Amino acid sequence: MVFQDELKARTQHVEAVLRDYLPKGGGFQKTLVSAMRYSIEAGGKRIRPILLECAYQMYGGMGQMAGPFMAAIEMIHTSSLVHDDLPALDNDSMRRGKKTTHKVYGEAMGILAGDAMMNYAYETAVRAFSLAKDDQRERVAEAFRILSEKSGVYGMLGGQSCDVEFEGRPLTEGQVEFINQHKTAALIEASLMIGAVLAGAPKDDIAILEAVGRKTGLAFQIRDDILDLTGSETELGKPIGSDVRNRKTTFVSLFGIPAGRSRVEMLSAQALDSFDSLSAEHGFLRQFLEELAVRRR
Amino acid sequence: MVFQDELKARTQHVEAVLRDYLPKGGGFQKTLVSAMRYSIEAGGKRIRPILLECAYQMYGGMGQMAGPFMAAIEMIHTSSLVHDDLPALDNDSMRRGKKTTHKVYGEAMGILAGDAMMNYAYETAVRAFSLAKDDQRERVAEAFRILSEKSGVYGMLGGQSCDVEFEGRPLTEGQVEFINQHKTAALIEASLMIGAVLAGAPKDDIAILEAVGRKTGLAFQIRDDILDLTGSETELGKPIGSDVRNRKTTFVSLFGIPAGRSRVEMLSAQALDSFDSLSAEHGFLRQFLEELAVRRR
Repeated sequence: MVFQDELKARTQHVEAVLRDYLPKGGGFQKTLVSAMRYSIEAGGKRIRPILLECAYQMYGGMGQMAGPFMAAIEMIHTSSLVHDDLPALDNDSMRRGKKTTHKVYGEAMGILAGDAMMNYAYETAVRAFSLAKDDQRERVAEAFRILSEKSGVYGMLGGQSCDVEFEGRPLTEGQVEFINQHKTAALIEASLMIGAVLAGAPKDDIAILEAVGRKTGLAFQIRDDILDLTGSETELGKPIGSDVRNRKTTFVSLFGIPAGRSRVEMLSAQALDSFDSLSAEHGFLRQFLEELAVRRR
Repeated sequence: MVFQDELKARTQHVEAVLRDYLPKGGGFQKTLVSAMRYSIEAGGKRIRPILLECAYQMYGGMGQMAGPFMAAIEMIHTSSLVHDDLPALDNDSMRRGKKTTHKVYGEAMGILAGDAMMNYAYETAVRAFSLAKDDQRERVAEAFRILSEKSGVYGMLGGQSCDVEFEGRPLTEGQVEFINQHKTAALIEASLMIGAVLAGAPKDDIAILEAVGRKTGLAFQIRDDILDLTGSETELGKPIGSDVRNRKTTFVSLFGIPAGRSRVEMLSAQALDSFDSLSAEHGFLRQFLEELAVRRR
């Protein structure tokens, strides 16, 4: 299959998995359920669940055990976007070409929908225990450990807090890299690691995948910074120039677009080098990692 | 030991467990760590971890395995308070006699501290896997399932969303009970159930403990509504009259204080009746459940 067709098929598969695991119905709390579903159904590239499933398959993972984690990591990512968009944070009205959750449901419900989505990620991931065979339970526990650590104060949310706190201040390259590594790369790392852990990959490979995820995530974020300056609002589905508006120091604001482009290339090459040193291979995943750095939306 | 002395000793023990499991240090994200610690260290009655540990001991639970869940359930409770207090929700400046988290750290950091605290609850609970023996891992997975379900859209957060959404509207008794059962009772139920599950209690007892938690939680909330009208601000550590200010329908606003008092007595008696039908006993826990309904602060 050519790359774009496989990407499309894999994205559709992720959409189906997400639909299976999204909260349903709801009695008195149906507005909350609706806000949660809205934030997920608004779309997105579904990068993290695709990475997770590829890594799972790369090590021979079979069956449904990865499904709850694929849904969970997209839910955690989505919960962070819902809260990022709030008035007290980035105050964004549009995302993926649609109104942001708090613009549709109000600020209080936006806060609670983000909370409930993050919680539901764990509620969903726990379902992997009942899909695992006895000797796979330990893998599920380890996947849980990675998911929670990479999402939290020492992972994504730690980076997010610095992004918010340091807004409007001049930052060092080290601070910008800390933010990118935590806010953006941590969940990319987690996706690759969790897929591999669930499939029983060797420990050495998990460490390499963490490095691959980090480099890819850093490249992805710098690419994002470049697109925020040069991209098309129609293609991106959100207003450009938000970093300037929010007075955010980025790699690109520090060193300029050409330096940003070379850094993306370097990081991407490093990620692929490490990827090629793994004990297993996955042609599509390799291409996908490459694609993430050069994407145009 | 007399009841008050044992309560004091148990509370101090919970404080020590919490200290062990709180996030430490922090590099660039030290403000987030500080905000998380502030919200927990501001105090509280530590009801949920005490209940959890009592239920654990009631079924012969030994060792450290309950510790991560004791910390986790208090973290989830705290995260919900931090977000409840935000301007878009109840807009409260004081809690437990201290400034609320967003009043000290700003609104954006208040949102992120609540998020990070909820995530850290799961990050902490997962540590129970490494404290469990091989044949106890399944109990940890089940405790995880209960914790996440009772905290989420079909538990605490579902109730919280209705509490917010229905503000200012006349509610039926059924709607008020739904809110109380989810927003307040769900975590009381979870505390008792998780402690018992971790200790390997019989399934029948888990179902009874869920009912005990529900009745106790409902009584606790009506008692809270009464205290919000009749309590002392000094004893409560927060302004009274907030339900009236926030135009919240409560059991007491529907039926008055005397009816509230009788309902508390009835629910508490039902809870204790069920408690006495369990296959194990725990004198302190029985007294503590009784105390929760008649508390003055």
